[in-house]
Amino acid sequence: MEQSEQQADPKANFLYRLRHSLAHIMAQAVLELRPDAKLAFGPPVEFGFYYDFDFQGNPLGENDLQEVENRMRRIIKEKQPFESSHQSLEEALRALESASQTYKVEYAQELVELGKAGEEGLSFYTNGPFIDMCEGPHLEHTGEVPKGCFKLDRISGSYWRGDEKRPMLTRIYGLAFESKADLKDYIERRKLAMERDHRKLGDELDLFCMDQEVGVGLPLWMPNGAVIRDELEQWAREEEFKAGYQRVSTPAITRSKLFERSGHLPYYADSMYPPMTVDETDEYYLRPMNCPFHHKPYDARPRSYRDLPFRLAEYGNTYRYEKHGSLAGLLRVRAMCMNDAHVYCTPEQVEQEFQAIIDMYRMYYNHLRMGNFRVRLSLHDPDSDKFIGNKEEWLRSEAIVREVMQRMEIDFDEESGEAAFYGPKVDIQVKNLLGREETVSTCQLDFVMAERFDLGYVDADGARKRPFIIHRAPLSTHERMISFLIEFYGGAFPTWMAPLQVMMVPVNDQVREYAENLAHTLRQDLFRVEVDSSDESFNKRIRNAVTHKIPNIWIIGAKEMENASITWRRYCVKEQLNVGVAQAHEALRKMRQARMMDNFEDVALPVEG
Amino acid sequence: MEQSEQQADPKANFLYRLRHSLAHIMAQAVLELRPDAKLAFGPPVEFGFYYDFDFQGNPLGENDLQEVENRMRRIIKEKQPFESSHQSLEEALRALESASQTYKVEYAQELVELGKAGEEGLSFYTNGPFIDMCEGPHLEHTGEVPKGCFKLDRISGSYWRGDEKRPMLTRIYGLAFESKADLKDYIERRKLAMERDHRKLGDELDLFCMDQEVGVGLPLWMPNGAVIRDELEQWAREEEFKAGYQRVSTPAITRSKLFERSGHLPYYADSMYPPMTVDETDEYYLRPMNCPFHHKPYDARPRSYRDLPFRLAEYGNTYRYEKHGSLAGLLRVRAMCMNDAHVYCTPEQVEQEFQAIIDMYRMYYNHLRMGNFRVRLSLHDPDSDKFIGNKEEWLRSEAIVREVMQRMEIDFDEESGEAAFYGPKVDIQVKNLLGREETVSTCQLDFVMAERFDLGYVDADGARKRPFIIHRAPLSTHERMISFLIEFYGGAFPTWMAPLQVMMVPVNDQVREYAENLAHTLRQDLFRVEVDSSDESFNKRIRNAVTHKIPNIWIIGAKEMENASITWRRYCVKEQLNVGVAQAHEALRKMRQARMMDNFEDVALPVEG
Repeated sequence: MEQSEQQADPKANFLYRLRHSLAHIMAQAVLELRPDAKLAFGPPVEFGFYYDFDFQGNPLGENDLQEVENRMRRIIKEKQPFESSHQSLEEALRALESASQTYKVEYAQELVELGKAGEEGLSFYTNGPFIDMCEGPHLEHTGEVPKGCFKLDRISGSYWRGDEKRPMLTRIYGLAFESKADLKDYIERRKLAMERDHRKLGDELDLFCMDQEVGVGLPLWMPNGAVIRDELEQWAREEEFKAGYQRVSTPAITRSKLFERSGHLPYYADSMYPPMTVDETDEYYLRPMNCPFHHKPYDARPRSYRDLPFRLAEYGNTYRYEKHGSLAGLLRVRAMCMNDAHVYCTPEQVEQEFQAIIDMYRMYYNHLRMGNFRVRLSLHDPDSDKFIGNKEEWLRSEAIVREVMQRMEIDFDEESGEAAFYGPKVDIQVKNLLGREETVSTCQLDFVMAERFDLGYVDADGARKRPFIIHRAPLSTHERMISFLIEFYGGAFPTWMAPLQVMMVPVNDQVREYAENLAHTLRQDLFRVEVDSSDESFNKRIRNAVTHKIPNIWIIGAKEMENASITWRRYCVKEQLNVGVAQAHEALRKMRQARMMDNFEDVALPVEG
Repeated sequence: MEQSEQQADPKANFLYRLRHSLAHIMAQAVLELRPDAKLAFGPPVEFGFYYDFDFQGNPLGENDLQEVENRMRRIIKEKQPFESSHQSLEEALRALESASQTYKVEYAQELVELGKAGEEGLSFYTNGPFIDMCEGPHLEHTGEVPKGCFKLDRISGSYWRGDEKRPMLTRIYGLAFESKADLKDYIERRKLAMERDHRKLGDELDLFCMDQEVGVGLPLWMPNGAVIRDELEQWAREEEFKAGYQRVSTPAITRSKLFERSGHLPYYADSMYPPMTVDETDEYYLRPMNCPFHHKPYDARPRSYRDLPFRLAEYGNTYRYEKHGSLAGLLRVRAMCMNDAHVYCTPEQVEQEFQAIIDMYRMYYNHLRMGNFRVRLSLHDPDSDKFIGNKEEWLRSEAIVREVMQRMEIDFDEESGEAAFYGPKVDIQVKNLLGREETVSTCQLDFVMAERFDLGYVDADGARKRPFIIHRAPLSTHERMISFLIEFYGGAFPTWMAPLQVMMVPVNDQVREYAENLAHTLRQDLFRVEVDSSDESFNKRIRNAVTHKIPNIWIIGAKEMENASITWRRYCVKEQLNVGVAQAHEALRKMRQARMMDNFEDVALPVEG
């Protein structure tokens, strides 16, 4: 549905005209209640519309929204036609001034000064008694608004022209979709998204914190969050080892020379922390990416075709100076740790390597149940000078990537101008709970940096040649990936990555020691286990474990102690299972080993009987 | 033996006087060969002595050292007494000028100007025909030099007063010890130390590299070195988990406020990278230590006595701007990663926690076979204003640490003035192969920072109290620890941390596929295995594996393939063992699981039969 908003001319589509018309209808209804209100702007926006009013000391409040909605429904019933007209500046100013619409007067003057008024004069739209200076387009008439498709949402303050030195206005937001069903769906998704907001859950589940003395955008991972990082990292480490990667570990700072050579300086300087100047002239930078720190180890020894493909991996710490306003929880931060790797290979190997990498992406996202991703092939824009390297090389490397994905029968869209400056890239686009698309990770084919860093290998024929470089980071940064995982799972992590894997709840004090001993045994096997022996009632302790979304509750009573068993209760699964202790321990081992996604209800525990 | 050099007045001891006397005896012998040589300085130094000469275009070379040594031995035989005398400046200048000793003239004038000449005038020592301006002390006579206790070592260039704008002199180094046996011992140890120098082995075994474009003191860990880091880190992670630690992960940068609060700024600024200034006034620093980044997560939630001890661990990346001249391989670097943790506990818990930590240190060092460490208790100096907090708190916390170590029957020395500015510390002092002592890691008891960061916990009585903080880093930084391990093991790492754990050597091409399949199986179980199927001869391939100090060589021939076995050859162990494949795989698993120190010859493989 949101997809349809991405058409070439967004104004042409129904949803745009609907939302725009509803903004007028709302203003019309508001003026019925507050005839003296002055109108400011009232545009359609993502998910609906708003209008800004100056109520001159007598504002509407949340309690009035129902009445406004009622009046809007009446106006809709009246099927008032939207009619376009034009007025000269003089006419327009006279009309607006006589209506005391001072904000509109200011804007009309500005439009004329900027030469934005058309030859016909300023554009107005009228429906019934309501007239607004506006470019349109609108619905044919108010009756076109589908039944039940909108809802007034909330009231907030906003400054005229966003300028805090100008008057404070009252903004009324409305939600609007093509149908009642779409509206309902959105409201439900928004509720879920708010419940699952990674900042909210991050706090409730004690995953990370921020601190003003440390600085904004610099998350500190609490023990619970650090567990998730470590588990993802361990997974990546094993998969990469089996796939023939070798790990390196490199510093997060460098002299400026390195990034001058890569071309990131000065090109990328705006997104970097400023330099540290030592010995008066030597500048050190925090790295915004790891790439050149892998080119160096590649280049530190002579390489032959026998060493290739040479795959270097590192969960690398990087720092980017993102604008304060664009920081958002873990999604956009200033310190991040990336599941990075660079594959150096011969031209003959590049397809096979690229395919293996795309396969690894697919494996990760399917395993994590984030199957609902879109693949985007980002190409260079021949009309832009952002892209270095010649056209033939661009076309050749773009063809390589395209063919690999076609052969793998992967659905993908192509987008011009979205490539990295040194080569085409594949973007994994994931939708969040509100349906908004984010790039979670990317993979680039680079035919430029080997030249810049003078990287080579001696081929079978004795000649020194340039390798291709594939940049890949399937698990993204910890920060971004975990922000998605928190929201997708609603904080209910599978056992293998859950901060606390098993909460034991002894029914009474008589079985407490037994539970403690069992917990100790599991901890020696590196399972994260706690025993809740607090003074709370049994039911309260169970509820606490559920509230904290702990994947496994092991209930221990007299019967369990007697026959060396536990009663296993999974998060959000009603049935309980009585299992022998040894068998339960073994099942946990299997779940960890297989990184089982037991947070999905359809997954059965590996317990026999 | 070096121990004796650490006495209160080093000049009083025999070794100092011996080395000093030998410097004179060498100069005397050199003057016999080059009567026109001008003398500069000739002090005793660690391991021996040197003298700087200006040979005025006719220098002695390495080939002349034997002749100098012969003449020195003759002088020693002559038992020439060392006699002290004094001369007024005038007398001295006249004598030195007439001997054309221009460097001595300059120094004599300087001594007088600085008021360093005594009331009696300038001090001289004479033996036989040789006289030198010198404060002494010396041996009674040259005959006191023990037989065979010295050896002229090498010749190098050096500038007069270390100033590259002054004349270049020739420095002749000699080694000297109390006995011939000590000299022999030192020379052998030095040979070993040079063979095992971690910079040399780091290069040969491809463990790390440095790069000028990245910057000095910023090691890039190559795949082989990254394996060792990862294995140490995994070990620490498991031990810490079992000991009740929780991990955090925090950024390596912060606003200046954090270090102003801790007191590190401006106190520690000289050892830090300069700040990055953003938005004109906001300064960000790279962290030189992790402590405040753990205080913040502690403080992010309310803590009660039930949460304590609260143990936060992190292998934390830190950056220190060490002086260029003091950088040394991995031993002293500018980017390091520390096995850090902070334990927050009540006063009642502090002894038990401190004891558990010291126990963990002991476990690590014993397991790594670095048992030969000295423990130093570093106390505050009541006469210094470096130490914050009041005297009672210092004495109380020092007493806690002292008592814990006495109860554990740990031998330790106490040293005043070596404490951290916020509390007493325990230093683990390890001797390197040359017998030089280095601090490998420290542990601090801190009663100051909880106050500075306003950290508290609610006690059982409802009152808010300050926790004690114990800072600990038993495995030091990766950089420092691995520099020691490389040298101690001479690059022959135990299987669990070896970059390559098993090298398979197929006897011929017929068994190659069998070897490859076996290697694949082991790799799926995350073992680091390679098959050497190169064109080299069988013996050459075995030698290559030995040269690279690979702990296990599995030889595979027709017989082995037939009965599904391998022939196991350990590094530096002569006996070979024929073992079934399944049994061999299981033995490797046990070695990894137990982190077996199979690089020590006395360790038997866990293979039955």
